[in-house]
Amino acid sequence: MKNIWLGMLVLLALAGTATAKSGSISEDTETCLECHATLHPGIVQDWLHSRHAKTTPAEGLKKGKLERRISVSQVPKEIATVAVGCAECHTLNSGKHKDSFMHNGYNVHTVVTPNDCAACHAVEVEQYGKNVMSHARSNLVKNPVYVSLMNEVNGTHAFEGTGTRMTVSLPNEKTSADSCLFCHGTKIEVTGVRTVESDMGDMEIPKLSGWPNQGVGRLNPDGSMGSCSACHTRHRYSIEMARKPHTCSECHKGPDVPAYPVYMVSKMGNVYSTHKKDWDFQAVPWKVGKDFTAPTCATCHVSLLVGEDKNVIAERTHQMNNRLPWRLFGIVYAHAHPKSPDTTIIRNKSGLPLATDLTGEPAASYLIDASEQKKRRQTMSAICLSCHGSGWVEGHFARLENTIKTTNEMTLTATNILLTAWEKGAAKGLSQNDSIFNETLEKKWTEQWLFFANSTRLASAMAGADYGVFANGRWYLSRNTHEMLEWLHFKLKPEHH
Amino acid sequence: MKNIWLGMLVLLALAGTATAKSGSISEDTETCLECHATLHPGIVQDWLHSRHAKTTPAEGLKKGKLERRISVSQVPKEIATVAVGCAECHTLNSGKHKDSFMHNGYNVHTVVTPNDCAACHAVEVEQYGKNVMSHARSNLVKNPVYVSLMNEVNGTHAFEGTGTRMTVSLPNEKTSADSCLFCHGTKIEVTGVRTVESDMGDMEIPKLSGWPNQGVGRLNPDGSMGSCSACHTRHRYSIEMARKPHTCSECHKGPDVPAYPVYMVSKMGNVYSTHKKDWDFQAVPWKVGKDFTAPTCATCHVSLLVGEDKNVIAERTHQMNNRLPWRLFGIVYAHAHPKSPDTTIIRNKSGLPLATDLTGEPAASYLIDASEQKKRRQTMSAICLSCHGSGWVEGHFARLENTIKTTNEMTLTATNILLTAWEKGAAKGLSQNDSIFNETLEKKWTEQWLFFANSTRLASAMAGADYGVFANGRWYLSRNTHEMLEWLHFKLKPEHH
Amino acid sequence: MKNIWLGMLVLLALAGTATAKSGSISEDTETCLECHATLHPGIVQDWLHSRHAKTTPAEGLKKGKLERRISVSQVPKEIATVAVGCAECHTLNSGKHKDSFMHNGYNVHTVVTPNDCAACHAVEVEQYGKNVMSHARSNLVKNPVYVSLMNEVNGTHAFEGTGTRMTVSLPNEKTSADSCLFCHGTKIEVTGVRTVESDMGDMEIPKLSGWPNQGVGRLNPDGSMGSCSACHTRHRYSIEMARKPHTCSECHKGPDVPAYPVYMVSKMGNVYSTHKKDWDFQAVPWKVGKDFTAPTCATCHVSLLVGEDKNVIAERTHQMNNRLPWRLFGIVYAHAHPKSPDTTIIRNKSGLPLATDLTGEPAASYLIDASEQKKRRQTMSAICLSCHGSGWVEGHFARLENTIKTTNEMTLTATNILLTAWEKGAAKGLSQNDSIFNETLEKKWTEQWLFFANSTRLASAMAGADYGVFANGRWYLSRNTHEMLEWLHFKLKPEHH
Repeated sequence: MKNIWLGMLVLLALAGTATAKSGSISEDTETCLECHATLHPGIVQDWLHSRHAKTTPAEGLKKGKLERRISVSQVPKEIATVAVGCAECHTLNSGKHKDSFMHNGYNVHTVVTPNDCAACHAVEVEQYGKNVMSHARSNLVKNPVYVSLMNEVNGTHAFEGTGTRMTVSLPNEKTSADSCLFCHGTKIEVTGVRTVESDMGDMEIPKLSGWPNQGVGRLNPDGSMGSCSACHTRHRYSIEMARKPHTCSECHKGPDVPAYPVYMVSKMGNVYSTHKKDWDFQAVPWKVGKDFTAPTCATCHVSLLVGEDKNVIAERTHQMNNRLPWRLFGIVYAHAHPKSPDTTIIRNKSGLPLATDLTGEPAASYLIDASEQKKRRQTMSAICLSCHGSGWVEGHFARLENTIKTTNEMTLTATNILLTAWEKGAAKGLSQNDSIFNETLEKKWTEQWLFFANSTRLASAMAGADYGVFANGRWYLSRNTHEMLEWLHFKLKPEHH
Repeated sequence: MKNIWLGMLVLLALAGTATAKSGSISEDTETCLECHATLHPGIVQDWLHSRHAKTTPAEGLKKGKLERRISVSQVPKEIATVAVGCAECHTLNSGKHKDSFMHNGYNVHTVVTPNDCAACHAVEVEQYGKNVMSHARSNLVKNPVYVSLMNEVNGTHAFEGTGTRMTVSLPNEKTSADSCLFCHGTKIEVTGVRTVESDMGDMEIPKLSGWPNQGVGRLNPDGSMGSCSACHTRHRYSIEMARKPHTCSECHKGPDVPAYPVYMVSKMGNVYSTHKKDWDFQAVPWKVGKDFTAPTCATCHVSLLVGEDKNVIAERTHQMNNRLPWRLFGIVYAHAHPKSPDTTIIRNKSGLPLATDLTGEPAASYLIDASEQKKRRQTMSAICLSCHGSGWVEGHFARLENTIKTTNEMTLTATNILLTAWEKGAAKGLSQNDSIFNETLEKKWTEQWLFFANSTRLASAMAGADYGVFANGRWYLSRNTHEMLEWLHFKLKPEHH
Repeated sequence: MKNIWLGMLVLLALAGTATAKSGSISEDTETCLECHATLHPGIVQDWLHSRHAKTTPAEGLKKGKLERRISVSQVPKEIATVAVGCAECHTLNSGKHKDSFMHNGYNVHTVVTPNDCAACHAVEVEQYGKNVMSHARSNLVKNPVYVSLMNEVNGTHAFEGTGTRMTVSLPNEKTSADSCLFCHGTKIEVTGVRTVESDMGDMEIPKLSGWPNQGVGRLNPDGSMGSCSACHTRHRYSIEMARKPHTCSECHKGPDVPAYPVYMVSKMGNVYSTHKKDWDFQAVPWKVGKDFTAPTCATCHVSLLVGEDKNVIAERTHQMNNRLPWRLFGIVYAHAHPKSPDTTIIRNKSGLPLATDLTGEPAASYLIDASEQKKRRQTMSAICLSCHGSGWVEGHFARLENTIKTTNEMTLTATNILLTAWEKGAAKGLSQNDSIFNETLEKKWTEQWLFFANSTRLASAMAGADYGVFANGRWYLSRNTHEMLEWLHFKLKPEHH
């Protein structure tokens, strides 16, 4: 009885905010809502605003090819004709979920994963699996070079007042989850059981390590990799959010990957900031010029775009790197994109798991070739040409490739100074079996590529010049090499001070 | 006669932009508007958009408990049944105002203060008085440690070409008002009289030092502390502004207190940026999920929040620290919140007015205890639980407390290096009766806590990871200790360069 | 026939989005649209949203003096009665355009210039020509001091493992265009011909160097200087964009000119961020208080502003410096504004093309005098007084002038250290005929004025205190001088380490 009353309450709320059809919420989801609508009003109201609450997969399947948001030809029968609610996602594939637990008669799991979303969005999940982002966690924690960087950044450094070095203890799990793995993704494991008090008595719920997390390369309790809610924030999953640059900014704002600030300082960001209020961020397909008049991140990197006559300008892709000839950031030297999203398999000439040698030579056999690069540049250029003449687009990309070359040269300069320091004993590096990140000169070298070269390249790539000049750009590329060289001379020739 | 015509003009303007009742503007305010509507159209139009112009305190008092914005049970008779206009605020309590002056027959004061606002908003003013923000000025200018930091930052450093130190002259009043005290609050005093030309002849008006200022801990000419317009910007006093994060950003954006950038890079900031256009920032009480779907600063720190059935999730408070177990920024080590908003009374073991020793030991008797901390964390958690499961919330706060511990450790490391430098004569500190902020090593030490540790903690507190990693976070905590140690070795052992 | 159908298609699209009068698009423009509406839907749709597409110059001329956006009394007959479309701008003055080429029977040029826009907006173009921004490119590339800074920033620095200096090669054209000249403006020249494939066969199109570019001081193929689309982004040319601060932020965001971040952290930026959704950014003239309740960049620096009775508060100007008494950024010492927008003619006492000596003495004969400064301050103050009392405004400007003085003093301190270093041989400068930007001490000196002093002054000028304290403000002014002095002592007295 209480059940029915509360169900009606929810339906009334629904009627107020949405166009959903009465009766489309499943009985199972209604049961969830009985308690959770009160416990977590933010979650439930957010969901009530979502497309998931307002339609059914069966309705979604009726749409035309370009308009469709579901990429399977058939959805599992049990969820096809109801709104996609609590129960539909949190009980799906429960057998595969190590975080499943019995909860008021339902096998429920906390962590909804790309594998669950694939019930309706299989193509996107498959593409994303080929995208380097789904491997963001494993490419970091399984690459000993990056692990030593993480440990140096996140570990606790202690100084006891003697010696010239500090002792560094490894970062604990919480620190890593709050730092690099916040974006790259944690490993979520069931580590025990916790008891939660509730109006219905105590409840036993799995205790999860690495939780909360929405990192793009999260390792999930069902073995899948990734988190759709990194960009499609639950529980609204709004395409508007995925298309606005703020969602990307959560992980692409800092000095190591300033894609968002570069975008915002560009002409495109200016147009977005000024006119976004007049754009349609919901339309599928996304019509260039009609729905929007300047690109956001999603426009160039993900979305299905059409022109005047619904002619396809770009196919939707969640394998974002297939519009990208070059890998510009997070690496020592910019290089052709890796063939595999798993970059831990790469070995450079020195045997390190890096896509280039320390002096810049690419590990070419692991990287896409010039013809694939050309193809990807054409895919991207087709989007640019929607709003720019061919001379504009060619001039733009010629500058980007020039910047790749010059920033790589400036990284080589910093590397040459570092190599000299190692060679002459002013610092300890690879051949001394020492970390390449734990001395001040090495930290300056790291900033050369991780901050300044990356920033300069992103500035060229998106025409946000500030970040290529005085905002962590060429000014610092130059200043930093001077400081490194001066440091070296201080170290080597004290008598010449 | 002119009076009547102009009054009608204003009433017509009012009718055009608002729902105010004709006749609700007091005669006194109409007199003000006669000239000032033309002299300062920005002020008057802004006020015409305000709730103050559109209703009367008597109307406001009729609202239900949750809906009410006035917190007294009775407002002074002379302002109860008129719009709250120029005269109502600028002539209130004039006897207490040293900045009062005779102006066309009225005793007018320039600076409206919390004590004036208390006529209608007494509870908020009282709470705010217990909030550390109302003491922001005095806690700074009456604490000799912080004074020495201010002098070092704002003073003019001169170099005559001899010696190893510069001469530093104290900052003048204008510089301080433009720097630290801009946010912390100036002391506003009548210093004389100035003559202003006007259509009505020359006018004598008090000359104010420290003006303009809207700092949160301003010392006012009526002896009160604080400035409501710091957040509730005159002359609209819009609750929408107080609830949007931009108002907080005016003072919480820089590297010392990057609360706003941390928020904006978080998932919450992303949701705000994407969906704020669909939210109701005016509703009182503020309904979670219905009026908004992600928190702003005000949501978690100030606002009255209700759930599905108008059940109160959080009571409104202007004593923001009663939702805060920890003090995270502006201090050398994070520590339990002080009991009193007046932090100048605190003495650490060394007798300094700091809440911890230089090595981190808290001055516990001045700080709230574990049970009060637990209570405050529960108050805050109740808000989080509106949108997150209990496992999520517990995991989040466990990380914050871990970060408090690890950042305090990293500050201790920097402090140990500094103490060694002082001890070995490489720098001059407390025992040499020298400022602890006036040497390069000391400045690096200051950045360790004031920038990097604070930033990392705020990043944990609000899940904006960037600011805990490469954007003034752990990367710098680590790099900075290495640079400090290297500096020390350069100083101490020149022969080993 | 195809022509007519496509023309109708465009007209229908137009009818859908605008209030344009049928038939107002010229035949020539219709011919352009036949192909380009499909080739570049972003461009055409953007234009369809513009005032240029929705009205005709003849209609614009009928408006009253204050409402008018056209500043000539008569527009060329051939464009007077049609929408201002592709052909109207891209074939205008083609004889003067070295980038003109025969394209399907039309003499078309790619780069539309201020000289073209002057057909309707002559006053704005003339004013802009007197504004220092139109000379932004030439003032940089023709000033040997700034050229040596650019070369040091943008050149490639190489280290071969020997010696104490790096070899620096000059930046190539692409790097310069992607760096300083992105904002300052490139020189656009026809360097040859390129062939573009199209449905209508191969086309020969001029190849342009320095393209793309929209820098404010661009040197155009018709010999004119500037680019209107720097602020009035094509092809919508929306006054809304020119009035919102994002357009200024494209070039005024970095640490060298942080005008936008300073504005955004100010009370004005807060009001803008909160209430802009309720403002009218299209109204001409712009009514203070009614159309907006806080200023944007354009309000104070450019726009025509009126008050309650359409009384003019400020005349529109595109010679922005005529509201500015001081030059605050981009220079070693703040000084009175130069008389001529061409600053390459200035010579200081030492004969350098700088407006002050290295020790701060102004090259007064090239700068406006005190009475002109007073006049400009009054022009600006009149705008402030729309929303602030006279005590507020006077207090504000007194602080700015105090900050000019104190920041100049802090730059002098840094300069004195540098001069001592040059004199004692610790670094090589002017008298050694060496660049003043190519050593670490010199780079620190550059940051003192280019970043920290500039930032502090802008913070005072716009009441955005963060940027005058810990965000590249006084904290760094002080810290930097200490580091410079310490560096000098390390260099000079190794035995005293």
